[in-house]
Amino acid sequence: MHRHFEDQLDELKERMLFMSSLVEKAIHMSLEGLNRRDERQATAVIVEIEPQINELHLELDDRALQLLALQQPMAVDLRFITSTMKINSDLERMGDQAVNVAQRALSIVAQPALEPVIDIPRMADITQKMVKDALDAFARRDTELARHVVLRDDDVDSYRDLIFRELIAQMIKDPQHILQALDLILVSRHLERIADHATNIAEDVIYMVLGRDIRHHAEEKAMVKNEMGES
Amino acid sequence: MHRHFEDQLDELKERMLFMSSLVEKAIHMSLEGLNRRDERQATAVIVEIEPQINELHLELDDRALQLLALQQPMAVDLRFITSTMKINSDLERMGDQAVNVAQRALSIVAQPALEPVIDIPRMADITQKMVKDALDAFARRDTELARHVVLRDDDVDSYRDLIFRELIAQMIKDPQHILQALDLILVSRHLERIADHATNIAEDVIYMVLGRDIRHHAEEKAMVKNEMGES
Repeated sequence: MHRHFEDQLDELKERMLFMSSLVEKAIHMSLEGLNRRDERQATAVIVEIEPQINELHLELDDRALQLLALQQPMAVDLRFITSTMKINSDLERMGDQAVNVAQRALSIVAQPALEPVIDIPRMADITQKMVKDALDAFARRDTELARHVVLRDDDVDSYRDLIFRELIAQMIKDPQHILQALDLILVSRHLERIADHATNIAEDVIYMVLGRDIRHHAEEKAMVKNEMGES
Repeated sequence: MHRHFEDQLDELKERMLFMSSLVEKAIHMSLEGLNRRDERQATAVIVEIEPQINELHLELDDRALQLLALQQPMAVDLRFITSTMKINSDLERMGDQAVNVAQRALSIVAQPALEPVIDIPRMADITQKMVKDALDAFARRDTELARHVVLRDDDVDSYRDLIFRELIAQMIKDPQHILQALDLILVSRHLERIADHATNIAEDVIYMVLGRDIRHHAEEKAMVKNEMGES
């Protein structure tokens, strides 16, 4: 019986890692679609990848609930299972955001090519790195890496504000490209949401490993920042 | 011992209802701030209500985890507790969206008053009704009401598209009010997210009561629609 439980936990973890890899792929492809004006990749996110993410979302939730119901796990295992349920929900919403980015990419591809907005690819790089690190932190139970993710959330918010101001100025200067500027503002909001979800996942990893809840705790985050120096 | 468990479940439910009422209040006040250009209400959402929501979010999560860890509940109680955890997370994110609306309201108050965009208050009314119904459905374990919420999500999406087109046209016609039009586009996105969370909650109520998962199931939603006629 106990052996069986361990196997089920391993399976749950393995399927979570597969879910993670799909979500990373969806985000990457939607951004490739945007940056390279590649309609094929943007479309694939919407019609191929996201439906798979939705299937997995239900499967993982079901696996976790079964484990809770049938095995009545304690302490560490219970924290792993409940964290998995939360992370699963964040992953599914990241998939939705990747679809949103892909839709903006398709809208932009249908419009004339303009000067690229320099800060969008930078914000995209930071966001993708946060996602990768949050998911690696989960896979390796690495709380140091998880803390690094939490600290980078402010950088993404700064980029969002920078891009917003840049694009507002562009809209006023050049009203005929309002629609495209607006698409890019929305992309920056979707990236911000993806980074928020990565932050949620990192916080869940810290809770899962240490049993310590740092969500909403500005003081505790500041402390983490001090402990780590200006990284 | 069993009596004690029942008491803890009742307490969890009572605190969830308090959390629900706070989130409804936050959404209502942020929209009053927007529609009446009332800086005081918008500010109160940000500095008074949302911090309370964040506190409650942690408290409820903690209560639910304690119940899972110490009581090892089965079947119906387990579904209630895990659904509570999910609904709690949606409520917290609705609070975040109310803050976003309040911030847009403050930005708009600082700009000259323009003709109101007629469809925003309509979208706001539908969204608030969905939130109220989803939370009533949870409080009363009313799956019929929950189904009605799920079906209304498409209406909100239609309003979002309508408002988007309306405001794009306004931006092109009148570039000096681009910033205000953009604020309103973002408000419509925040309302859309609030309606999405209300839909999530309604789906969780159906799962909680019936043990039936209708998330991501377009066919099942269509069936629900047929069962109910054109309501």
